[in-house]
Amino acid sequence: MATITLKDLARKLNLSTATVSRALRDSHDIGSETKRKVRELAKELNFTPNPNASNLRSQKTKTIAVVIPEVANNFFALAINGIEEIAQQKGYHVLIYLTHESFEKEIETLQHLLNGRVDGVLMSMASETNDSAHIRELLENKIPLVFFDRGREDIKVAKVVTDDRFGGYSATKHLIDSGCKKIAYLSLSKKLLNSNNRLEGYLDALQEAGISLDESNIIDCGTDPKQNFSMIYKLLSRKTNKVDGIFSAAESLVLLTYQICKEKNIKIPNQVKVITFSNSPTSSFLEPSLSTITQPAFDIGKEAATLLFKSIEKKKMDYTDEIKILKSNLLIRKSTSTL
Amino acid sequence: MATITLKDLARKLNLSTATVSRALRDSHDIGSETKRKVRELAKELNFTPNPNASNLRSQKTKTIAVVIPEVANNFFALAINGIEEIAQQKGYHVLIYLTHESFEKEIETLQHLLNGRVDGVLMSMASETNDSAHIRELLENKIPLVFFDRGREDIKVAKVVTDDRFGGYSATKHLIDSGCKKIAYLSLSKKLLNSNNRLEGYLDALQEAGISLDESNIIDCGTDPKQNFSMIYKLLSRKTNKVDGIFSAAESLVLLTYQICKEKNIKIPNQVKVITFSNSPTSSFLEPSLSTITQPAFDIGKEAATLLFKSIEKKKMDYTDEIKILKSNLLIRKSTSTL
Repeated sequence: MATITLKDLARKLNLSTATVSRALRDSHDIGSETKRKVRELAKELNFTPNPNASNLRSQKTKTIAVVIPEVANNFFALAINGIEEIAQQKGYHVLIYLTHESFEKEIETLQHLLNGRVDGVLMSMASETNDSAHIRELLENKIPLVFFDRGREDIKVAKVVTDDRFGGYSATKHLIDSGCKKIAYLSLSKKLLNSNNRLEGYLDALQEAGISLDESNIIDCGTDPKQNFSMIYKLLSRKTNKVDGIFSAAESLVLLTYQICKEKNIKIPNQVKVITFSNSPTSSFLEPSLSTITQPAFDIGKEAATLLFKSIEKKKMDYTDEIKILKSNLLIRKSTSTL
Repeated sequence: MATITLKDLARKLNLSTATVSRALRDSHDIGSETKRKVRELAKELNFTPNPNASNLRSQKTKTIAVVIPEVANNFFALAINGIEEIAQQKGYHVLIYLTHESFEKEIETLQHLLNGRVDGVLMSMASETNDSAHIRELLENKIPLVFFDRGREDIKVAKVVTDDRFGGYSATKHLIDSGCKKIAYLSLSKKLLNSNNRLEGYLDALQEAGISLDESNIIDCGTDPKQNFSMIYKLLSRKTNKVDGIFSAAESLVLLTYQICKEKNIKIPNQVKVITFSNSPTSSFLEPSLSTITQPAFDIGKEAATLLFKSIEKKKMDYTDEIKILKSNLLIRKSTSTL
């Protein structure tokens, strides 16, 4: 006997397959009379839903969500392109949600995703997020999740990240090798794992070189450009304990640094050398051209999407600790030159 | 006699109101037998749809879609921020869809939006789009639409744009005032209204200055960076008929120009002056700092979202010709300096 499919049921009942599928899932969309008819026929014909589909919400949206802090940032713009390349191959739509680094917005967004709008979620945490309950709720609703770039240690799902600690170490070591002795670290957020890992790398390099840590050189920047400006301005206005090198965790912070140096007529690299994490295509055209730690943003997006589709296609959640670490590149330009 | 509502029909037919509503709208989601039953009863009971709700699909998603070509572009990144500010006030979610400048992807995306996922759509056309049928289908489905930055003349909905023609004129006039006589225009796409309007402004300025047009100075760039690179490379390698000024319609094209000038050791602004439409925060830190026509991207996003919510809240479509034109700014920096 041939296997009975959703299509067979739909044809016999003169309903769409979508309606039959919803009726079998007891969707509130479908009237009770229709549900009764669908169930009776399914029972009569011995219809069994695809067993692989039973332990995960049945995939039907052909849509994944990407939840990220912002798009005015080349890292995320490139990562999205990588995600879309994979989604396109799979015939999936990609919805992009921005949290603007806000914890509250991130909670709202995940709430919005709870009721079956998407088959899976790719996520990079907002810098203000300091709890995981909203993410747990997503997982309890059997929605596959993969973190990229900014994950949380306390959530056991696959993560795709850069070697942030090594990147922080390389950047700081490069400044030390270029003659810097008093190096500031511009942090993105104390709540972000990747920013903290970059800090660890900074500390590793200082220790290796026998430079003792000056806590006042760790600048805790946040999401408010005005506050960031004033913190960096203060750093560069010191009369004593002046810094001769700056390692920034984010592109946006280094643009503020360039702006302040221009205003105060501080010469880069002569008076202060600067290096940053960045994926900006303009780095080599800046005055002076900017040394960077560059993440493989496109590949991070591709890898994260690939892992997510594995989870979607296996139709089961992977509560895995798997962390995929992609290498970043040190690109040396004039902003750290010793000339 | 009490007015018959959707709910009454649904109860009598033992269907959900959503199904009844969809059946009346002839949704492909609903089986033909169900549609027949719904229509017959509606006729029998003299059901008339709520006049306020009839010309617009009932709002319930609390979600709007933003359909744009790309995010690795500061204009769109800023416009999204403006859109999100308004959406936040209204308690709406914003979904971002990228077309990557592809006509096909744009069609797919609008198809995806047809079945009630969102209450309205903000859209900036892909540069490869050369037909409007997919947009008409959206409108036939009573989904409110507002264009921003890149609209189509043949679709009568509200548009929020910049004064592209005046921007093109100002940029070109500034090059002429700086001594340029042989000015190239780097076009974004012949299919885009805004790129063509910028071209009109370029032509206006040439005519005003009595400079006759050299068609070979209009470079039709596209979406392929490699092709764009080779076209600009060819332009800057001319032995005769050399250009002394370049006006670019897009930020990405001017970065290629900087790269090629660096490779070929062509000095900006001494040998060629350069100006572009751009919203990049790095313009003033480039070497040399870059003169720009800067669009009020954030405000364009805000205005477009405001118009869309007016249409959503009035519960009727505005097939209006209304075009809101926001002013751009000419920012003069070293890339057009006469020194």
